[in-house]
Amino acid sequence: MTLKPLGSRVVVEPIEQEDITAGGIVLPETAKEKPQKGKIISVGAGDRDESGKRIAMDVKAGDTVLFAKYSGTEIKVDGKKLLILRESDILAIVE
Amino acid sequence: MTLKPLGSRVVVEPIEQEDITAGGIVLPETAKEKPQKGKIISVGAGDRDESGKRIAMDVKAGDTVLFAKYSGTEIKVDGKKLLILRESDILAIVE
Amino acid sequence: MTLKPLGSRVVVEPIEQEDITAGGIVLPETAKEKPQKGKIISVGAGDRDESGKRIAMDVKAGDTVLFAKYSGTEIKVDGKKLLILRESDILAIVE
Amino acid sequence: MTLKPLGSRVVVEPIEQEDITAGGIVLPETAKEKPQKGKIISVGAGDRDESGKRIAMDVKAGDTVLFAKYSGTEIKVDGKKLLILRESDILAIVE
Amino acid sequence: MTLKPLGSRVVVEPIEQEDITAGGIVLPETAKEKPQKGKIISVGAGDRDESGKRIAMDVKAGDTVLFAKYSGTEIKVDGKKLLILRESDILAIVE
Amino acid sequence: MTLKPLGSRVVVEPIEQEDITAGGIVLPETAKEKPQKGKIISVGAGDRDESGKRIAMDVKAGDTVLFAKYSGTEIKVDGKKLLILRESDILAIVE
Amino acid sequence: MTLKPLGSRVVVEPIEQEDITAGGIVLPETAKEKPQKGKIISVGAGDRDESGKRIAMDVKAGDTVLFAKYSGTEIKVDGKKLLILRESDILAIVE
Repeated sequence: MTLKPLGSRVVVEPIEQEDITAGGIVLPETAKEKPQKGKIISVGAGDRDESGKRIAMDVKAGDTVLFAKYSGTEIKVDGKKLLILRESDILAIVE
Repeated sequence: MTLKPLGSRVVVEPIEQEDITAGGIVLPETAKEKPQKGKIISVGAGDRDESGKRIAMDVKAGDTVLFAKYSGTEIKVDGKKLLILRESDILAIVE
Repeated sequence: MTLKPLGSRVVVEPIEQEDITAGGIVLPETAKEKPQKGKIISVGAGDRDESGKRIAMDVKAGDTVLFAKYSGTEIKVDGKKLLILRESDILAIVE
Repeated sequence: MTLKPLGSRVVVEPIEQEDITAGGIVLPETAKEKPQKGKIISVGAGDRDESGKRIAMDVKAGDTVLFAKYSGTEIKVDGKKLLILRESDILAIVE
Repeated sequence: MTLKPLGSRVVVEPIEQEDITAGGIVLPETAKEKPQKGKIISVGAGDRDESGKRIAMDVKAGDTVLFAKYSGTEIKVDGKKLLILRESDILAIVE
Repeated sequence: MTLKPLGSRVVVEPIEQEDITAGGIVLPETAKEKPQKGKIISVGAGDRDESGKRIAMDVKAGDTVLFAKYSGTEIKVDGKKLLILRESDILAIVE
Repeated sequence: MTLKPLGSRVVVEPIEQEDITAGGIVLPETAKEKPQKGKIISVGAGDRDESGKRIAMDVKAGDTVLFAKYSGTEIKVDGKKLLILRESDILAIVE
């Protein structure tokens, strides 16, 4: 069972805080707005511009990304917690 | 008696929670915003872009979709509960 | 005495709940947002796009439509209660 | 002394309720939003589209129109009460 | 010392209520939104459309205009009270 | 050390009220929104229009301008108090 | 481990107040909105205009910039505190 997000939406699997520390990124406790790390599972075809053409997505399946913590919609697929976000909620790709 | 939704609207028949669990998707109880699963019954001709041309719809009758729980307008047709949603309220297609 | 609605507005004659039940559509009592059924009496020439051209209307006089219950402006013409709505307030055409 | 409204504005002389009843239109007392009847005295040259060209007005001096009751700006010219409205506040032309 | 307003702004010298009465326009005491009369002293070069070209102004220095009472910014130049308004705050030209 | 403002921003050195009085402009104490006088130190390259081209600025370094009192961001450079404003916050050029 | 910001976002390393004083810029204690100084570490590819083309960024890695103090999202990478900002939050480049 797979999810095909619509428009500029992406499906992301969040990565727990412990993994983040191991990877060298520590999210500060007093941050104004705490970002969260995750892995992109699938991406939509992109929003359409005003003439109806698709705007290419800047992220792809497999990318590790940072996104604002309380964005998106949470679902569980086969026991795994996933998030459906819009690409505009993604702050940066971690390389 | 059939409903022809206007613009980018779609008519969706919601699928009950029990069915969803059986299908492998469990909606978490503590989710920030709980999505709901449904089957698309009919789709509009699409919104018009700024030059008046139709923008193609990304979903079609028969698609199983996830949408935000409190979106759309509820009606009953021949005893069946249906929802009229905008395509932008649909998060993902379940395949 | 007739009314010629401006832009994308339409003049609608609401159909009472009893008629709706007879026609097979029952509006649920606990619906989040209850739609209402009505018959289109007259339609405007359509809004203009950004270059000033008219955008064609998707509904026509005679159509039976569903619209959100509290939309539009209510008037009485020759004792008949009518509503002036925008086309965007119309959810679906009943066929 | 005359008023030349700017952009898509129009100058309207409201018609009292009594006249409206005589003309066959009765405004319901419990209406959600009561429209008012009036006669157009003068119209602006129209708003400009994004390339600076005028968009033609859909109403002209002499038209009898319905408009939302609390829209526009009220002035008195030579003892006559007038309203300056935007064309988008006009619901329909009464013919 | 002169003021050259930017964009679609204009510099207006308000005309006192007494003058207005004399000129035949009486502003009603119970008006929803009371307009004020004034004389245009200078006008800006106009806003730019989306391709960067100037949009021509509809008013010119010397015009007597009506504008919403609490719009704009008040300054004093050589003891005279002036207002800097946007053209969109002007309701009509009095001729 | 110099500041190069981004987009349509400008760096302005405010002129004290005393200087303003001397120059013939007195800011009224009861004004709804008090403007402030200042001298432009540097200007940005201009915002980009929707096709990415720069829109020319209407002010230049050296201009004396009026701007709304509480707009912009205050900084101190080498002991001098400066403001970073957007061009749209500037009401008029004083000539 | 590096961060590739999306769209018009930039990654900035904030510079402490002490450094700022040494460099000649003192941020006033009573400022309405205090800006902060920082060094740009990496920049996104730019937002897309309405036809999908990238809009060039006005800042580049290595630039010293002023930005509004409470803008952006704070993260820690390898013990260093960084901010992810949008280019529109940057007030000026310090040269």
